Amino acid sequence: MRSESTRRAILEATRDELAASGYDKLSIDRIAAAAGAGKQTVYRWYPTKSALVADCLLEGYVLPTTSIDVPDTGDIRRDLGDWLRAFAEGLDHPQNAALIRACTAAAADNDEVAAKFYENATAATETALTERLHAAELAGQLKKDAPAVAVAEALIGAMLFRLLTRQRATVAFTEGLTEAVMAGIALTPSPAQR
Amino acid sequence: MRSESTRRAILEATRDELAASGYDKLSIDRIAAAAGAGKQTVYRWYPTKSALVADCLLEGYVLPTTSIDVPDTGDIRRDLGDWLRAFAEGLDHPQNAALIRACTAAAADNDEVAAKFYENATAATETALTERLHAAELAGQLKKDAPAVAVAEALIGAMLFRLLTRQRATVAFTEGLTEAVMAGIALTPSPAQR
Repeated sequence: MRSESTRRAILEATRDELAASGYDKLSIDRIAAAAGAGKQTVYRWYPTKSALVADCLLEGYVLPTTSIDVPDTGDIRRDLGDWLRAFAEGLDHPQNAALIRACTAAAADNDEVAAKFYENATAATETALTERLHAAELAGQLKKDAPAVAVAEALIGAMLFRLLTRQRATVAFTEGLTEAVMAGIALTPSPAQR
Repeated sequence: MRSESTRRAILEATRDELAASGYDKLSIDRIAAAAGAGKQTVYRWYPTKSALVADCLLEGYVLPTTSIDVPDTGDIRRDLGDWLRAFAEGLDHPQNAALIRACTAAAADNDEVAAKFYENATAATETALTERLHAAELAGQLKKDAPAVAVAEALIGAMLFRLLTRQRATVAFTEGLTEAVMAGIALTPSPAQR
């Protein structure tokens, strides 16, 4: 199909343009020229830069290099902290941050993109994290029936919040968060129960 | 200025169109017609629906009805749980969910919108939450130097994650999350320390 080859040419041109100029300076005009496609065609298929970049990511043309491997040293406190730190470091790279923001924008805007992006990208991170938590529970390091999904989503969500509000997730931030989730912030056991 | 009055007419028409049709069926064509503006003008100022809706929210034309008041009964565990529940219930309304998704998309796409939206909307929620946590710390209910900001952002972030992945935040989810943050998921004190 002619339109499919045009689409691939557009995605390849976007990949090259992203590598050369980065997300913020991404030019639809240059992409259209490089792909030999009409500007109107590109805008018709991709009304926003984020929609274009999201499709690139979903089709595997570009990949953000945020870590999704969750370490397993046997010490869940340490592994969770290390994973969160690695995730935060991934977001310190402006290119990664821009790519994930683009995907977030596209997912927020469109149900289908959201489903596809969750299926192809986010779910892997969430599953790796919940599986590590379940393993720790089986190993007797966590409370029985600890809410693994809620905790995983709170950790990913906190990173997303930092990204959207353009705040760095410092070591103090990720360490505080890990400690809060592992040990809780309430004064327990209460003095009366000691 | 003529352009300023046109802009206001567009925002008013968007407010009316949102109330009548909702976000998903929002029609730029109808908005342009109602505002007496050219379609091209609307698209030039607002390349996406989310950008248009975000500006409406920032200018106070529409307001999402998510609760930002954090209750203070003196019991931080209960107040945090009730607040999270109320937040989740707010997101159960499709109109609210769509508005917040639109703002998220606009904030993800644009640094200026992100800064303005954070300043005018998100910061109030985050501040209310961190102040409630600090009060609880002063009241001796929380550990000294509990990471209030990280916890507040993890709670808001978890809600945002649910919203973006189109998952409901059920009572089981918000309760599990509240309990995890308050009491921690690790088995502490460990049996050996008892």
